[in-house]
Amino acid sequence: MKRTEISQLGEFGLIDRLTKNIELKNKSSEKGVGDDAAVLSFENKKTLVTTDLLLEGIHFDLIYVPLKHLGYKSAVVNFSDIYAMNGQPKQITVSLGISKRFSVEDIEIFYEGVYLACQEYGVDVIGGDTSASLTGLTISITCIGEGEEGKIVYRNGAKDTDLICVSGDLGAAFMGLQLLEREKVVYDGEKNFQPDFTGKEYLLERQLKPEARKDIVRFLSEEAIVPTSMIDISDGLSSELKHICKQSGVGCRVFEERVPIDYQTAMMAEQFNMNVTTVALNGGEDYELLFTIPLYLHEKVSKIKGVHVIGHITKADYGLLLETRDGGEIELKAQGWDSIKE
Amino acid sequence: MKRTEISQLGEFGLIDRLTKNIELKNKSSEKGVGDDAAVLSFENKKTLVTTDLLLEGIHFDLIYVPLKHLGYKSAVVNFSDIYAMNGQPKQITVSLGISKRFSVEDIEIFYEGVYLACQEYGVDVIGGDTSASLTGLTISITCIGEGEEGKIVYRNGAKDTDLICVSGDLGAAFMGLQLLEREKVVYDGEKNFQPDFTGKEYLLERQLKPEARKDIVRFLSEEAIVPTSMIDISDGLSSELKHICKQSGVGCRVFEERVPIDYQTAMMAEQFNMNVTTVALNGGEDYELLFTIPLYLHEKVSKIKGVHVIGHITKADYGLLLETRDGGEIELKAQGWDSIKE
Repeated sequence: MKRTEISQLGEFGLIDRLTKNIELKNKSSEKGVGDDAAVLSFENKKTLVTTDLLLEGIHFDLIYVPLKHLGYKSAVVNFSDIYAMNGQPKQITVSLGISKRFSVEDIEIFYEGVYLACQEYGVDVIGGDTSASLTGLTISITCIGEGEEGKIVYRNGAKDTDLICVSGDLGAAFMGLQLLEREKVVYDGEKNFQPDFTGKEYLLERQLKPEARKDIVRFLSEEAIVPTSMIDISDGLSSELKHICKQSGVGCRVFEERVPIDYQTAMMAEQFNMNVTTVALNGGEDYELLFTIPLYLHEKVSKIKGVHVIGHITKADYGLLLETRDGGEIELKAQGWDSIKE
Repeated sequence: MKRTEISQLGEFGLIDRLTKNIELKNKSSEKGVGDDAAVLSFENKKTLVTTDLLLEGIHFDLIYVPLKHLGYKSAVVNFSDIYAMNGQPKQITVSLGISKRFSVEDIEIFYEGVYLACQEYGVDVIGGDTSASLTGLTISITCIGEGEEGKIVYRNGAKDTDLICVSGDLGAAFMGLQLLEREKVVYDGEKNFQPDFTGKEYLLERQLKPEARKDIVRFLSEEAIVPTSMIDISDGLSSELKHICKQSGVGCRVFEERVPIDYQTAMMAEQFNMNVTTVALNGGEDYELLFTIPLYLHEKVSKIKGVHVIGHITKADYGLLLETRDGGEIELKAQGWDSIKE
């Protein structure tokens, strides 16, 4: 494959090359790349802003993460935060710090992933910054979205007796990561290593190409449901439940048997000799939506495909509890992946 | 000084500690730190978005840049981009990648600088991301501002015969950097090094604690002047003029004798055996505003303190020219600091 050094193009040349095909799709994107700032127009809408910093060696390992997938995932994890506010992502800025290891073609492949995600989710790339880096790849993405007055959902509105709902299934992305890490160790240094991932495709997909739950936000809107609280599951169910309970001043009761787990996740956890519930509660990177709704909406919410009621909100005094399969009760602890604490 | 390891607090603990005193000041800041996204409200205003990535060893050297100054500057350079659109900065998100070298107290000092800048410029910190980093300090700031319909100024509106104006003076930040770099080499390894910067304070201030030209944007508004084009000078006058001319499809003629240069800059350039005009044209990091106005506003603009008319816009065919002191003509070349090209 052709390798063009970034120094051959310079910063402005690189930006031109990466952004030359952008066509702004959203009405709110008035002016994108190419000036001191982008210009957006949110008439009668609220503006939502979220940002994520992803660093090589901390958040991703390029030994097993393809650059295109990395671009896709970097964008999608930000969209997920906007959906978690019951909003619609509309714009992103993409900033990259790039070491000499990377060629122009590498960065183009990364952007292919970003643009693919933007196409799937109807988002415009409106700006960014590009810089040399001494070591590794640094990715900083800010996502801007819109929300409707009165329909934005925070973490602090959960009320006693509300039902706790979660989309999709949990723990698969974490098991995908374990699998990739294991293969990396086993095949360390060997060229052309081709591990056999047959029967584990779902786990890899969840880790390498996660999706944000645009569909759930649409279903909620179609069913005229505005959750009382919502958050996306990036650090694990326990950690996110803790955020909701703390900010809402409530407790919760989750039923172990109701926590949705895919067959591949369960199989893999067993192979790794891990407790599958622990994996599902603390795994992280699921990017599913966790939300609460008033009890009377039970029937409506059960119509939404892929949403599971896993428990209910309680008074704060009860704490955060997990009712185990055998009828016991244990405290829910957030052992979530904490990118700083070690 | 007390040293608390970041691992003692964890990511959420660190964020709580850094953001606990935030009080949102702007009406448009509805909800700041503490949810999946911040919520903003820009009724009848346009939203402006800009972002900057700053990496240790590329954009700053902590040997001579105090962390508080770094925080201040990181925020201010983003505000400058919003002013360059004739807008008002209102919110920022601050993302940090932090290696183990840094303590909680270090990061608090950095934030003191950020908050000081926000206070001076009336900006709210509304979010961010905090992560471990394998090496050095990574700073990514996104600034959101507001602009009025019809008063946002782009780079592409300069017209033949327009006057070219620049605020403040040029080249001082670059000379400040040269001075710091020289002292760093001279005193390499020596403890308690106390170089004598007497008579060079202005150069250091311009490098270490730059300001954004909020005042110029206010004066322009008071005088009811909407420039035809505007940009902030971060990469050097020549480079920025090139952006304006390219995007506006025009040429320009700049008079060497009109380029504003401070006495300290001139003195220092002589000491370093550098051509002071080259320094002023290409130095970078001045964060002054470069803008164009129709000829008939000449009298009005000359009332604005600290604004200099340095030349005029021409038809594209004439190219980008500098008329030298001796009456000669040379092509303006952008040798600006290019963070990637080497």
